[in-house]
Amino acid sequence: MRSIKIVSLPGDGIGQEVVASAVQVIEKVAPKFDLEISIEEHLFGGCSYDAHGEMLTEETLAACKNADAVLLGAVGGPKWENLPHNKKPEAALLKLRKELGLYANIRPAKVFDALADASSLKKDIIQGTDFVVVRELTGGIYFGQPRGYDEEKGWNTMVYEKYEVERIARQAFELARKRGKKVTSIDKANVLEVSQFWRQIVHEVHKDYQDVVLNDMYVDNAAMQVVRNPKQFDVIVTSNLFGDIISDISGMITGSLGMLPSASLGDKYALYEPIHGSAPDIAGQNKANPLATLASVAMMFENTLDLPEAGKLIYSAIEDTLSKGYRTGDIKSEGCKLASTTEMTEQILTSL
Amino acid sequence: MRSIKIVSLPGDGIGQEVVASAVQVIEKVAPKFDLEISIEEHLFGGCSYDAHGEMLTEETLAACKNADAVLLGAVGGPKWENLPHNKKPEAALLKLRKELGLYANIRPAKVFDALADASSLKKDIIQGTDFVVVRELTGGIYFGQPRGYDEEKGWNTMVYEKYEVERIARQAFELARKRGKKVTSIDKANVLEVSQFWRQIVHEVHKDYQDVVLNDMYVDNAAMQVVRNPKQFDVIVTSNLFGDIISDISGMITGSLGMLPSASLGDKYALYEPIHGSAPDIAGQNKANPLATLASVAMMFENTLDLPEAGKLIYSAIEDTLSKGYRTGDIKSEGCKLASTTEMTEQILTSL
Ligand SMILES: CC(C)[C@H](C(=O)O)[C@@H](O)C(=O)O
Ligand SMILES: CC(C)[C@H](C(=O)O)[C@@H](O)C(=O)O
Repeated sequence: MRSIKIVSLPGDGIGQEVVASAVQVIEKVAPKFDLEISIEEHLFGGCSYDAHGEMLTEETLAACKNADAVLLGAVGGPKWENLPHNKKPEAALLKLRKELGLYANIRPAKVFDALADASSLKKDIIQGTDFVVVRELTGGIYFGQPRGYDEEKGWNTMVYEKYEVERIARQAFELARKRGKKVTSIDKANVLEVSQFWRQIVHEVHKDYQDVVLNDMYVDNAAMQVVRNPKQFDVIVTSNLFGDIISDISGMITGSLGMLPSASLGDKYALYEPIHGSAPDIAGQNKANPLATLASVAMMFENTLDLPEAGKLIYSAIEDTLSKGYRTGDIKSEGCKLASTTEMTEQILTSL
Repeated sequence: MRSIKIVSLPGDGIGQEVVASAVQVIEKVAPKFDLEISIEEHLFGGCSYDAHGEMLTEETLAACKNADAVLLGAVGGPKWENLPHNKKPEAALLKLRKELGLYANIRPAKVFDALADASSLKKDIIQGTDFVVVRELTGGIYFGQPRGYDEEKGWNTMVYEKYEVERIARQAFELARKRGKKVTSIDKANVLEVSQFWRQIVHEVHKDYQDVVLNDMYVDNAAMQVVRNPKQFDVIVTSNLFGDIISDISGMITGSLGMLPSASLGDKYALYEPIHGSAPDIAGQNKANPLATLASVAMMFENTLDLPEAGKLIYSAIEDTLSKGYRTGDIKSEGCKLASTTEMTEQILTSL
């Protein structure tokens, strides 16, 4: 029996409901792989602010650092929108990423066949799309100094150091090796020196991965290409800000935004979360789609626990449930069986 | 008789052919509105580099400053791709924008009914889309100091001063007044101080435009929204880098990228150009689509020459030609009449 400690941070809004679903799935899957998993829940986000006046307490942070993996639901909501910027959920999220050294954000953009009609893109354009965005998550303009504003101006600094580009490039090449062996590095090297630097380092790292094809693409063109022909991509690697934009477009075009997982990885810690937000409008109504969180759990089994078979089991249960016609409200279509969060979870558990 | 001086910069690749088409159209339209237009051609881009070792000479710059409007084709091509960054066409373009003070880049994202099938988005999502992106063009991270790179890192500075945000916001609000009275300002204020500053100034300027509705949107969400439901937008205003990305997605989703014009406006000068590039693969083959350049000419008549009727005349000729089924290769579809650049131009001239 291998013992694993997971910290869960349900957070706000539907975060509670989707993480509750995930906990049931983890508990069902663990014994099949001879795992003893303990799940310790902590406050993070608005709920933490309400209890302690802080979105991310030292105690929660310490618990995360003491866990094998962190599972996050979602944070934020109208209640905390008017706090000063440094008190907001976003600031806590950035602090958590930085403190845990989660420099690699991995976001699959995969079209589920059962949902290929749900995209605003034509079916023939998106069907079969399956790529991954590897976004640098603890550097760039999100964290660069100097930064600030006064009466007359505002400023931020986009900066990358060599080791930051090197390690994210390696993540991308390693991932590409396990997939289609193609990396597209996105930058704005025709204008920005930080991008010229980025491009140079990515190409240096590429020397160790000659079995992988590397292309460069300008960010403006890349944003268009994701919409024009998403099937051309295998692994995209890019900086924090560009990755924020590109990974959101990539998620959107799949038509499965409520379905997409993410992993944020560092050298020591790992955090898994659905890419959707806290959806305050449907929170507490048993309407939330738990599948993105379950897919995040699948990624956790694959990556942190090194059990790809467990990941596959969960993915199969998801596809099975979809192909039986079960849908939460966000992905409903004609003729489907409308399911609540708990019904959806039941189906998955049955499938497992 | 009003005398107007236009400087044309055909540039490289298909720039030559589309500007030649535009010159014919200008010469046909001018007399109808009692204009005497002189068009003076100058070198810019790769062709200028080949002749003078510089992409933008002092002489060309002086000519632009002496004109009522500048008409640009496109610049660049494989021949000049390996020059150092500061010698490349991109650098010349940025210098031209800066020297002429062209701080407002106006890019309509309009779906031509005849081409509504050409988008990778579903027809019902894009049909009727008609918004304009107002991109700040002479500030932000494109021009911010300090900037550079060394062995260990690369850096750029995203900075906005108050007057820069004020004047671009005014452009957007003024434009919205003539359209749907709605402005969406795009930023990343949940992370960047420069965006918090931007947002604050835009809201201050908004006080003078209470008849216009103002919304803020984060750039990652905006990129998704343009793909999800483009019809929600009327006027988008945003910074240089975000505008680069957002305006390209906006153009792409219309399915009419080869059809879209742009205007770059300052307090003293104005430049008009198609948003497509120099397309070296089809250059010199009489295959280029001149319509984006002709639409840019229409914008020139509307804006700089204050002759909206002349602009409308050109737009009508474009729609007329499309509805007769004429198409260049880039927008061809089943049952259309495949036309060369010169044939397309002939049709437009007949229509006028
Ligand atoms: C909430 C925000 C700070 C965050 C980001 O920009 O990184 C979000 O957009 C994301 O992509 O996770
Ligand atoms: C060529 C490049 C410098 C330019 C830009 O980034 O502004 C282009 O992408 C554009 O949008 O006109």
